[in-house]
Amino acid sequence: MILAIDVGATWTRVLLVSRDGRVERREKFRTDESPVEKAARLVEGWEFEAIGVGSIGPMDLRRGWVTASPNSPSKSFPLVEPLLKFKRPVYVANDCVAAAWGEYVLGGWGVDNLAYLTLSTGLGVGAVVNGHLILGKEGNAHELGHAVLDVRGDVKCGCGGLGHWEAMAGGANIPSYFRVFAARLGLRAPEVRTAEDVFKLYREGDRVAQMFVDHWVDVNAAGIATITAAYDPEVLVVGGSIALNHWDLVEAAVDRLKKYTPLTPPALEKAKFGDDEVAMGAAALAIRPPDTLKKFGYPRF
Amino acid sequence: MILAIDVGATWTRVLLVSRDGRVERREKFRTDESPVEKAARLVEGWEFEAIGVGSIGPMDLRRGWVTASPNSPSKSFPLVEPLLKFKRPVYVANDCVAAAWGEYVLGGWGVDNLAYLTLSTGLGVGAVVNGHLILGKEGNAHELGHAVLDVRGDVKCGCGGLGHWEAMAGGANIPSYFRVFAARLGLRAPEVRTAEDVFKLYREGDRVAQMFVDHWVDVNAAGIATITAAYDPEVLVVGGSIALNHWDLVEAAVDRLKKYTPLTPPALEKAKFGDDEVAMGAAALAIRPPDTLKKFGYPRF
Repeated sequence: MILAIDVGATWTRVLLVSRDGRVERREKFRTDESPVEKAARLVEGWEFEAIGVGSIGPMDLRRGWVTASPNSPSKSFPLVEPLLKFKRPVYVANDCVAAAWGEYVLGGWGVDNLAYLTLSTGLGVGAVVNGHLILGKEGNAHELGHAVLDVRGDVKCGCGGLGHWEAMAGGANIPSYFRVFAARLGLRAPEVRTAEDVFKLYREGDRVAQMFVDHWVDVNAAGIATITAAYDPEVLVVGGSIALNHWDLVEAAVDRLKKYTPLTPPALEKAKFGDDEVAMGAAALAIRPPDTLKKFGYPRF
Repeated sequence: MILAIDVGATWTRVLLVSRDGRVERREKFRTDESPVEKAARLVEGWEFEAIGVGSIGPMDLRRGWVTASPNSPSKSFPLVEPLLKFKRPVYVANDCVAAAWGEYVLGGWGVDNLAYLTLSTGLGVGAVVNGHLILGKEGNAHELGHAVLDVRGDVKCGCGGLGHWEAMAGGANIPSYFRVFAARLGLRAPEVRTAEDVFKLYREGDRVAQMFVDHWVDVNAAGIATITAAYDPEVLVVGGSIALNHWDLVEAAVDRLKKYTPLTPPALEKAKFGDDEVAMGAAALAIRPPDTLKKFGYPRF
């Protein structure tokens, strides 16, 4: 049995998963100031051989800490220390990185090259290339949500960078980018508070929202073209509430890929594990540890 | 001894290299319709244990053929078959991929995460992430020269894609992009035929050329930010005639990185092997074969 923990900005999910990927227990609680400590108390008495953690970032993978999380109750908290008392191997990765590994190990895709994309409040990417989980020097070799897609634009991302994919296409940024988009064209944008407001207007036939969503599909096509150029995946697994609620628009972006790349596009697939996506990824880290995590000192005992 | 062959669009270079990276023999000839066949005739009587080939693409790595090269005397030619008569293991990769591996194995950088960038007639990238040479499903997981950097732009790349880094910053495209850039601002561009004409005007203080080069530095900063997001390298090794002739502008792009990414930037370094860059990379493929090449059926005998 594997203990799998998904630390999200709002919810922390705790799963007990068998080595072949069956979920035996499932708990969740609102992420507090030290969510892994709370999870460690919650699972007292559970039996498991190894622990996987997938978490919001940014994190310092070597220390096993979240260091500067913008949206959770605490900016900084430990991911590993509270778990050491169990005397079991612990494996940690960023949430999208874990999800990519979970789809690779447990998704049954039968490929060696797989990229994971989540379109939700934020926008994140993870990748397995030639069977290796891509981490890089600090574990940030998956940050294509922060690929620059609009070098001539002045839209600033939450991270501070200019023209990023997430700044234009992430759910939290869609309302403000919708207003920027309309202003550029000299149009009056209808009032919106959330990304779903924009998609609702689009579905109702609002002209400005339709022009915006057409552009949003272009932006996602350009982002997926950049993922393809960087990782050359066979399968692109897409998850996240916006993607799953508006799958026709994800398909439209993939259909539009040839506008942005001559490379063979990946096959588009829906993420397999719903709300358990990151937790199943965390489990997969412990079930089949990626060779690339060794350099970061994992497993920890 | 290793036989190393670099098939370029104009020149094919043939080296005999010791296992520790010393060049023992060096030949070159103008790339003809079947350059590897010609190289195989040239090296009759040479003694070597293994063969590495780095070549212009695009290639079909599984077949070991260049399939659709736009600028060489023949669009399509074999990379492996003419070498099989030597009964030695043969390893093949794209030129920038080989160069990245050469810098990793023979460059003495002492890092596990390294990206290679060439700024020349074209613009190419290769990457080693966590010690693995990144190839992807077809060997195209290095094509960030074709990352989309200008999703709202209408500049078309030689490959057919819109808004690519190479379309704005590659040497062959600089003169036409210079004219597009000036026209956008309603300015009259001075006559230019080559990229060097543009850089000469810039050095002489021409105002339009100075505005253009400032933008060109932004484009390269955005591209390097995207490399950083994709691969998180410790070292970025930069080669190619434009980069080496205008190193101050490469440094300017790296200095401007924080405009485009909050990630820890890589250390900028000059490529080590001059005209031998790709050939040394080809040698490195045979000296320390990348695990990721196995899936493509290498070595061949």
